[in-house]
Amino acid sequence: MRTRIQEFLREDIGSGDVTSNLVIPEDVMARGRIVCKQDCILAGAEEASVVFKELGAKVTKVREDGKPAKKGDVVLEVVGAARSILAGERLALNFVMRMSGIATLTRELTDRVHKINPDARVAATRKTTPGFREFEKRAVLLGGGDPHRAGLFDAVLIKDNHIRIAGGVEEALRRARKGSFTKKIEIEAETPEDAKAAVKAGADIVMLDNFGPEEASELSKELKRLRPEILIEVSGGIKPENIERYAAGADIISLGALTHSVRSIDFSMELERA
Amino acid sequence: MRTRIQEFLREDIGSGDVTSNLVIPEDVMARGRIVCKQDCILAGAEEASVVFKELGAKVTKVREDGKPAKKGDVVLEVVGAARSILAGERLALNFVMRMSGIATLTRELTDRVHKINPDARVAATRKTTPGFREFEKRAVLLGGGDPHRAGLFDAVLIKDNHIRIAGGVEEALRRARKGSFTKKIEIEAETPEDAKAAVKAGADIVMLDNFGPEEASELSKELKRLRPEILIEVSGGIKPENIERYAAGADIISLGALTHSVRSIDFSMELERA
Amino acid sequence: MRTRIQEFLREDIGSGDVTSNLVIPEDVMARGRIVCKQDCILAGAEEASVVFKELGAKVTKVREDGKPAKKGDVVLEVVGAARSILAGERLALNFVMRMSGIATLTRELTDRVHKINPDARVAATRKTTPGFREFEKRAVLLGGGDPHRAGLFDAVLIKDNHIRIAGGVEEALRRARKGSFTKKIEIEAETPEDAKAAVKAGADIVMLDNFGPEEASELSKELKRLRPEILIEVSGGIKPENIERYAAGADIISLGALTHSVRSIDFSMELERA
Amino acid sequence: MRTRIQEFLREDIGSGDVTSNLVIPEDVMARGRIVCKQDCILAGAEEASVVFKELGAKVTKVREDGKPAKKGDVVLEVVGAARSILAGERLALNFVMRMSGIATLTRELTDRVHKINPDARVAATRKTTPGFREFEKRAVLLGGGDPHRAGLFDAVLIKDNHIRIAGGVEEALRRARKGSFTKKIEIEAETPEDAKAAVKAGADIVMLDNFGPEEASELSKELKRLRPEILIEVSGGIKPENIERYAAGADIISLGALTHSVRSIDFSMELERA
Amino acid sequence: MRTRIQEFLREDIGSGDVTSNLVIPEDVMARGRIVCKQDCILAGAEEASVVFKELGAKVTKVREDGKPAKKGDVVLEVVGAARSILAGERLALNFVMRMSGIATLTRELTDRVHKINPDARVAATRKTTPGFREFEKRAVLLGGGDPHRAGLFDAVLIKDNHIRIAGGVEEALRRARKGSFTKKIEIEAETPEDAKAAVKAGADIVMLDNFGPEEASELSKELKRLRPEILIEVSGGIKPENIERYAAGADIISLGALTHSVRSIDFSMELERA
Amino acid sequence: MRTRIQEFLREDIGSGDVTSNLVIPEDVMARGRIVCKQDCILAGAEEASVVFKELGAKVTKVREDGKPAKKGDVVLEVVGAARSILAGERLALNFVMRMSGIATLTRELTDRVHKINPDARVAATRKTTPGFREFEKRAVLLGGGDPHRAGLFDAVLIKDNHIRIAGGVEEALRRARKGSFTKKIEIEAETPEDAKAAVKAGADIVMLDNFGPEEASELSKELKRLRPEILIEVSGGIKPENIERYAAGADIISLGALTHSVRSIDFSMELERA
Repeated sequence: MRTRIQEFLREDIGSGDVTSNLVIPEDVMARGRIVCKQDCILAGAEEASVVFKELGAKVTKVREDGKPAKKGDVVLEVVGAARSILAGERLALNFVMRMSGIATLTRELTDRVHKINPDARVAATRKTTPGFREFEKRAVLLGGGDPHRAGLFDAVLIKDNHIRIAGGVEEALRRARKGSFTKKIEIEAETPEDAKAAVKAGADIVMLDNFGPEEASELSKELKRLRPEILIEVSGGIKPENIERYAAGADIISLGALTHSVRSIDFSMELERA
Repeated sequence: MRTRIQEFLREDIGSGDVTSNLVIPEDVMARGRIVCKQDCILAGAEEASVVFKELGAKVTKVREDGKPAKKGDVVLEVVGAARSILAGERLALNFVMRMSGIATLTRELTDRVHKINPDARVAATRKTTPGFREFEKRAVLLGGGDPHRAGLFDAVLIKDNHIRIAGGVEEALRRARKGSFTKKIEIEAETPEDAKAAVKAGADIVMLDNFGPEEASELSKELKRLRPEILIEVSGGIKPENIERYAAGADIISLGALTHSVRSIDFSMELERA
Repeated sequence: MRTRIQEFLREDIGSGDVTSNLVIPEDVMARGRIVCKQDCILAGAEEASVVFKELGAKVTKVREDGKPAKKGDVVLEVVGAARSILAGERLALNFVMRMSGIATLTRELTDRVHKINPDARVAATRKTTPGFREFEKRAVLLGGGDPHRAGLFDAVLIKDNHIRIAGGVEEALRRARKGSFTKKIEIEAETPEDAKAAVKAGADIVMLDNFGPEEASELSKELKRLRPEILIEVSGGIKPENIERYAAGADIISLGALTHSVRSIDFSMELERA
Repeated sequence: MRTRIQEFLREDIGSGDVTSNLVIPEDVMARGRIVCKQDCILAGAEEASVVFKELGAKVTKVREDGKPAKKGDVVLEVVGAARSILAGERLALNFVMRMSGIATLTRELTDRVHKINPDARVAATRKTTPGFREFEKRAVLLGGGDPHRAGLFDAVLIKDNHIRIAGGVEEALRRARKGSFTKKIEIEAETPEDAKAAVKAGADIVMLDNFGPEEASELSKELKRLRPEILIEVSGGIKPENIERYAAGADIISLGALTHSVRSIDFSMELERA
Repeated sequence: MRTRIQEFLREDIGSGDVTSNLVIPEDVMARGRIVCKQDCILAGAEEASVVFKELGAKVTKVREDGKPAKKGDVVLEVVGAARSILAGERLALNFVMRMSGIATLTRELTDRVHKINPDARVAATRKTTPGFREFEKRAVLLGGGDPHRAGLFDAVLIKDNHIRIAGGVEEALRRARKGSFTKKIEIEAETPEDAKAAVKAGADIVMLDNFGPEEASELSKELKRLRPEILIEVSGGIKPENIERYAAGADIISLGALTHSVRSIDFSMELERA
Repeated sequence: MRTRIQEFLREDIGSGDVTSNLVIPEDVMARGRIVCKQDCILAGAEEASVVFKELGAKVTKVREDGKPAKKGDVVLEVVGAARSILAGERLALNFVMRMSGIATLTRELTDRVHKINPDARVAATRKTTPGFREFEKRAVLLGGGDPHRAGLFDAVLIKDNHIRIAGGVEEALRRARKGSFTKKIEIEAETPEDAKAAVKAGADIVMLDNFGPEEASELSKELKRLRPEILIEVSGGIKPENIERYAAGADIISLGALTHSVRSIDFSMELERA
């Protein structure tokens, strides 16, 4: 994580913080507080801490990532050279604002789903901001969701384009099963026939793509009769508005909106001489 | 840009695309089309092209960044090894979805502001996703907005925390003016008194922070009387809902929401054997 | 791969190839042939090609990776500036020699195991050379083996040290199952009791560590009766000498020697003016 | 070295150690011991220490690199977060196992050669694992051998391919001697005539390539009569089995097997709560 | 800065400091003193400190960067492993020698200019050593000069080649003013007509290129009458010998010689066992 | 070299060339010429070519590195996008200006030395600009000089500080000779006694540090009587003004001024629409 945070600092600081270098004397010490401006599930406070430590300041975490924070709460305190705190302020806030936005939405959806089906998982996708995926997935986790694949490398997921080129569900699964025994195999199904074929051909997980909630629920039951251990993921067209309707009939509900269309939570930094 | 895109590909591909390596034979060639699913201002097609070129595929841009695209439009075509196109698909879509989201919102707000004040600029802030700023700023530009500072390095912006530590607006500006003659000096003002002091002390730009629209407009006129070349930026509490009320009285209207709380535009990739 | 190969070239060339820069005029063109000096399963010819292409030379692959090559066979031809070919020679040979050593041993063991149990997999471990794992795992694959985990990131493998700290097999598995549904869960068992507990507690794979061949075989049958889909991996103390005795009773046989104690296959480069 | 070790950790840990993150609570502290399982010359304990320090643990080296370690010896102790120790375990062991393998073989061959000729050096070659050369050369040094060239940059070594393209031994040496006075010049000779020509033309070192032991010994004496300071290296076809027969007639005996075909020494890590 | 200094250390140390590794035992501690051999304005002592800290030694700065140092002054003391101090010696001295050379020349010219015009700035250019610009600009600053642009990214500077391609001063300025309001716009003028056109078209700074001192002075006055806030930079053909003649008529005097043709100041390192 | 040049471009271009992006349309093609403004020995034209190629332009080298160029000569032509040529202009010129400065001074001194002693070498030192050494050493080579050591890694050079800590010349040499047989051993001598001791103790090269020209010449003869193959380097206090007086009595004359205090040669770029 430190390497990434060093890169992010370089992005913002570049050839130097011209404002602080001029306006703030080198030896002024300061104390800063990151204050929450909206109720939320906190995430990114750990990353914010690393930002300030990397710049040589001392950090006290007041609130814990993954727990609720209320408007007005101080979530983190930092003491150090005023120039260092000012150089890290924006990056630290950008972490907390975005990651808390994701964690808060995830928690809200997870709570709603769990009222109906306590065993279902709300999962993210690979629709993340390029270069920032590890932090967005961590925020999903802190919000109680499932991060799903970290990338193309850690599980087999056979999608419509793969199936079309491979020449069908069975053939695609036949090939995939030659892969390493250490990886799970998931396959996307766009029709009930494909879904059943997938279960029979040995998939570990079937993703029902763009099915309506009732249709998905019915099909799910049928597939579990074919093989009880099969996992059913529903995806496509699922939004905060309709997620509860999918809750009963699925093991996993995945939606891109967890990471690609989130509103940041507002936080600010208050600084004073120390 | 290529270096960044290589990093982003590594983030997704990591130790290898286990699905395609198993399911898609190495020598299968394919043709892919990125299709727009919602009316928008297109952005990120250039980045998507570089993604596929980096993977050895050939790209034809059908629609141009910065121009409108309609639901159903093909915006980009790519021909190459099926494995390469599949390896780049998600990253290419992530670029187009996010950047078009930003460009579309920027264009909408800019259009609304320009109806009232054709000379006003809608500007972004540094509230960007860590590591992805250059692309978010480019999307703002494509949407007709102003990117504002690229980072801490390319302009002086004295904010409340700087002023408090420096001991006031005049002292902060006095110090800043010792800096390089090549940089503009902007200062944040939270009261009309501070704003006037800033104009008198030689600021190039005054940012009126958290003023109401009428108050900002009145003050702006007064400041321009003091020095006609002064630029007035309004910021804080400005949202898509109230932006038009700020349009008349400001040279620049900046809002974090352009980059920190944007909804992605939906795009998908259609693939077939070539 | 190109990035890694550029690093490897820097390792060898550093501040410059002082010999060729002095002895070989800049404009001399040459033709080189990589010749096999021992019968083997070829691996690394792809990497060797990339080495020479990176240095601007043209490459023709004569033999294919994963196929047998015989003593005396030319496996690859390269034409280009003599200085470039000489600068890449050692790195190209180091790739082919090591990777062919691994592929050849893997093929030999796989063949022996398959005579007894055609469905068993011979798998590598994480006992690889630091920084060179992706190439060693690829060589195992080319030899017909299973690469096993790519690293700590792509599957859950609970080993003795984890179990001891977690406080037992059941507790460790209980915690692991809270992880992402996309990852398989494997657990090491050192006693028959632990192995049975693991199957009951929902492991996907059980690794029988340091069991004798008969004991492993007996236990494997018993575990499959508990849950037929369970995968059994045997590991620990398995060597080329005794591997066949484990073949019947296991789905996977893993051994570190595939990558940590391999003899290179001899290859050489013949060069002449072109 | 730290930079390299950070890369190696990234290779293994990638997007995160999914096992420990699930099974081991963040605040559990542990004590680990690296235990030797075979008598050997220890190497790599220094690198293993850096691995654990990089992860924030405290290390005590119990045995010293370059000295013998016996089966059962604890060579290194580490105390820290259990997750950190588990994250570094495999890399630390991979260092110690490979480097001790090399150091042990080097010591054995050096001892055998020194019984016959105490002034002869046993030297490695550039037949190392790509990216891991500095550690393999260090292991040779710890075993009492000579690392030979670090790469193409630190000495001139004119090989058969250079001579053929340059047009002969004299011409190649004439060109090489125009190079910087700071580099030694070595040349490979495949016939006694070439060897004599090389000595006369001013080589610092002559490498007798693929000569039999008696032939090499005779020729060496003859060359030393021509110029007493000349250094004679023998290379090609030398193996642990026949190395002693070359000992009397050479200043340096070099063999690729020191680094390209070594058996790892077995070590393991024992971990307990601290 | 640490990242850059690590790269610079790698440039010098590469595969290892073969001299110290052989001649200096690992456990010898030493005390070193960097001694000034010529009167100068000190610069680079901060960088030298970071060099030694990076290598694990303890540093005491005796003289401060930006202040005069006299022949014979100790400017920095370092205590640590002799090998570490020797490994950093050359890099530390290279920093101090070059940066003090630049700071000393800058101070000399600034003093001469300020006697005539206390408000004028002596500024550097982008004629810096590739890869070393940040340090050369810092040395200019320490000498009392203005660093001018950090690169192509932090201010608009329209030069003759831009004007020619854009089709004239007005058109170039018209386009430039569409850029971000956060950047200043400077334009080069080769004739009085161009200079006046530039002032009228809204440039922030006009650079009079290759004007004689009297001509520049006259024109400057005329331009200030057109717009009092305009800044006038003179450049081209200015050397230490004639700089005073430009002092009266310019706000900024820039010259490449500050960084591209500087004589180093002599410093040496004295080392003794500690 | 490409990697380094990419870094240097990033240093100058950073977050974007704001001037060209505004003033020069994306599709304007241009032709540029690098013109020599002072007679010199050309160096850096190769690097300048790589700069422009890296940016996608086409380059024709008109003059060759290492050969004389006259005032007014076009040394390189480039055709491509105007924006690309403008983005690379400064870096390309910075290469040519600095490297030609070094090559020109080196040639001048080498010519003067060779009139007196055609076999003597004029050599550089490690007093180079951090991060730019490979280019400065190449310029020395193009000027006819000897680059001396590339760094601490490619030859043993025992200096006064090493000798003091090791406890004398003999002891330092005794230790050094245990190092790899592939490295030459040079030692600095500050007295005739030390120089003689060094020759007797087996140094390959003796550096006479801070000797006067006559003294150096006398001592050199005496040392060659002790061992005719010994190489004598003189160093310390040697300047362009007095170098000829050292020419007769030395094999190598080294001076830091070749790289640390060089005046750049003036070059400019002329650009026109293509």
